[in-house]
Amino acid sequence: MVIALLTDFGTSDYFSGAMKGAILSVDPELRIIDITHDIKPQNVSEGAFCLGSCYLDFPESTVFAAVVDPGVGSSRRGIAASAAGRLFVAPDNGLLSFVLEENKDAEVYELKDPAYFADRISSTFHGRDIFAPVAAHMARGVDPVEFGPLVRNPVILSPGYPVRAGAEVRGSVIHIDRFGNLITNISDESGARIRKLGIGNHEILKRARYFSEALPGELFFIEGSTGTLEICVFHANAAELTGAQVGEPVFATL
Amino acid sequence: MVIALLTDFGTSDYFSGAMKGAILSVDPELRIIDITHDIKPQNVSEGAFCLGSCYLDFPESTVFAAVVDPGVGSSRRGIAASAAGRLFVAPDNGLLSFVLEENKDAEVYELKDPAYFADRISSTFHGRDIFAPVAAHMARGVDPVEFGPLVRNPVILSPGYPVRAGAEVRGSVIHIDRFGNLITNISDESGARIRKLGIGNHEILKRARYFSEALPGELFFIEGSTGTLEICVFHANAAELTGAQVGEPVFATL
Amino acid sequence: MVIALLTDFGTSDYFSGAMKGAILSVDPELRIIDITHDIKPQNVSEGAFCLGSCYLDFPESTVFAAVVDPGVGSSRRGIAASAAGRLFVAPDNGLLSFVLEENKDAEVYELKDPAYFADRISSTFHGRDIFAPVAAHMARGVDPVEFGPLVRNPVILSPGYPVRAGAEVRGSVIHIDRFGNLITNISDESGARIRKLGIGNHEILKRARYFSEALPGELFFIEGSTGTLEICVFHANAAELTGAQVGEPVFATL
Repeated sequence: MVIALLTDFGTSDYFSGAMKGAILSVDPELRIIDITHDIKPQNVSEGAFCLGSCYLDFPESTVFAAVVDPGVGSSRRGIAASAAGRLFVAPDNGLLSFVLEENKDAEVYELKDPAYFADRISSTFHGRDIFAPVAAHMARGVDPVEFGPLVRNPVILSPGYPVRAGAEVRGSVIHIDRFGNLITNISDESGARIRKLGIGNHEILKRARYFSEALPGELFFIEGSTGTLEICVFHANAAELTGAQVGEPVFATL
Repeated sequence: MVIALLTDFGTSDYFSGAMKGAILSVDPELRIIDITHDIKPQNVSEGAFCLGSCYLDFPESTVFAAVVDPGVGSSRRGIAASAAGRLFVAPDNGLLSFVLEENKDAEVYELKDPAYFADRISSTFHGRDIFAPVAAHMARGVDPVEFGPLVRNPVILSPGYPVRAGAEVRGSVIHIDRFGNLITNISDESGARIRKLGIGNHEILKRARYFSEALPGELFFIEGSTGTLEICVFHANAAELTGAQVGEPVFATL
Repeated sequence: MVIALLTDFGTSDYFSGAMKGAILSVDPELRIIDITHDIKPQNVSEGAFCLGSCYLDFPESTVFAAVVDPGVGSSRRGIAASAAGRLFVAPDNGLLSFVLEENKDAEVYELKDPAYFADRISSTFHGRDIFAPVAAHMARGVDPVEFGPLVRNPVILSPGYPVRAGAEVRGSVIHIDRFGNLITNISDESGARIRKLGIGNHEILKRARYFSEALPGELFFIEGSTGTLEICVFHANAAELTGAQVGEPVFATL
């Protein structure tokens, strides 16, 4: 069984290695896949977006261990969830927002039974001491209901859905990727195709079908790989060109 | 079977995770190895160099999925190749240059048959939608000839072979590694050993057998791990010291 | 069997990929786990700390291949060690310091028998040519004693143990993690709990049980996940706030 990891632990410390070791200590046959350990430190919403953007690409029965956990050691809950035929373990801080929003029938349970944790629990590293062993037990077939009581109100971060007013849609930048592309939360609606995007003092009329269709240096927008619109510059960095950051308002005209 | 990944997707987005998920969705038993996801964005020649520098270290039958793909979604072809007993899938933009130059008997086929792709193909992420599933099918035994027509003229980037004139060889820096070592395309020829290298206004007479043989702060050159000469400084950064970049001319004296 | 890798090779070159290929060339069934490839270049003590902080999280029989190797190609020895039921291969430069200090009954052997190396040994990349194949052979069951003679005096870096004088303990910062937390080598002694830490011109009286117990912007200390005290700021970077670097003295009051 495969356990896919998404954390903000970075790759220069021993943290992700310790999580992997803790998984293999439960069962050395488990297989571990890195999604990313480079979520910006303690940026729960970025982690939620990245997990939400790829969990459906994995096969059913995949176990996801997601740890971006500024509240580690406090009274924030740990949760396990079953959604879309896949299994998830994470702190209850909104990291599963996209997964739970997209699967209203998800079942969520609190991590309570210490039988599934490490023998000694630190107060600063539940990724190693709780989430990794719980993920390993799920990959071995333990149902989330075994871990503790049903959670009816898991934390969901507002995804900041775009607001439509007539022919205008107001959304925002929800992620900036490695290439500097600005991923928005705006998508074409049924039968209504976006013709124009505004961001800062830029008005973007060029809509491309693929990156290299645009002229070098030209701002354009495109339907990105998760289905929403992205603002890009071919062979350059749209984030640098526009100065936009995550949260920047984007105005779309149908 | 093992699929080795080399991309410019970085490690802070969901891209490499989505590729891995797409591979496992074809066959959850496939094993995935990261070579690197940190090729400089859209730098095809750097990707070609890195792939060329390590593919022979992997056992035969390894499948390599290489994606540095500024032309994604345009009419650039996707290709699968069989070379040196190993299998490759990549955009046809020169990313396989070293592999194909070193294996003139390689067989290259165009990716045409959508039966081996994802059901829905985005125009911006063929790594997930085309290259990952094709790699998975190759790892399961599908021969590249199944994917489409023979490609007789795959794109090959000029590797900028060094030019020899009498006792002088003019080459260039083709890669700068993490340690700041300048990897050149110049190697000793049969029976002719390089005695001196010139770069910028530096003339380097010290030829070392191993890094720590040199004095701290001293520029020297050495036969590197891929067989060409490298310019180095022990316990320091030759790229910073010389200001050299990829492409910088290097003059060797036999 | 699992081979866990810890190196300073970075993730943007072909180095870690070549090591993985060399392992799989010995046995394609071996499983490879990345601990980190982002140890600071040639920083042996940082590598030793990271390895020491996670090797016990892995199950027994795990093979660790650790390569931070500024002396590659010189007369520095390569070693294999058996300690705590786990197996290690590394250059003999102190990289195994924590492992060997914590396991006085460890057995250490020099890598001498070229039957376990690659056919051709470069002078700059023993990670690929020696340490990777030796790790693979250990994972296949070869005992370290097979590789060469017993090593009675492996290199051990002084861990800079803290010094106690009355109610004062003088230690130091031994690692700064991704979050900017300052990991010290000071821990509570039996029955003596640290009440105050001094670093630079900061005197820290706040001792937290978990990160989010502290006020934003407030320096505090906490028992970290490896058992020693760490200096932190909630939702901020203690290294930036204090200007401390590795080696900075820390004064503790019982």
